[in-house]
Amino acid sequence: MLDKTSMDATSTDEVNGAELLSFIERAERLHEERKAIASDISDIFAEAKGRGYDVKTLKAIIKDRALDPAQRTEAEILKDLYEAALSRART
Amino acid sequence: MLDKTSMDATSTDEVNGAELLSFIERAERLHEERKAIASDISDIFAEAKGRGYDVKTLKAIIKDRALDPAQRTEAEILKDLYEAALSRART
Repeated sequence: MLDKTSMDATSTDEVNGAELLSFIERAERLHEERKAIASDISDIFAEAKGRGYDVKTLKAIIKDRALDPAQRTEAEILKDLYEAALSRART
Repeated sequence: MLDKTSMDATSTDEVNGAELLSFIERAERLHEERKAIASDISDIFAEAKGRGYDVKTLKAIIKDRALDPAQRTEAEILKDLYEAALSRART
């Protein structure tokens, strides 16, 4: 589209409308897909809630499972450390 | 899983592990799909950047196109209004 050394081009002649539209439409299609998936995720949590599960706890477990064992241990150690510091600050 | 009137159940007997795992794994699969799409979106913008397009401008156009005409007009009017107020405040 533009000569990469002349990014300050402002003339419409230098912008390839068809190519531009193709990039935009590709991004828009993926945004739509992402929105559909986000809605499917909401549906799953709604279904789980309907079955009596606590959604916050489910999400906390999913977050934990995304960490590898070393990361999880580190996260737990830091959390304990901070909680101990907070509890000392309160007394 | 739980009787919905006794959400304070804490006994593991009352939690159906298989059902729980199925909810978690369904959500995790969708999270993976969402991540893959986010990465595809990044790829498109990287490609557009490589072709000399300004990514910020592309994203601004995509945002505009997501609004219906009435929303877009309202957004433009509000933006003009706020900019006029800011310009008065500066003088």
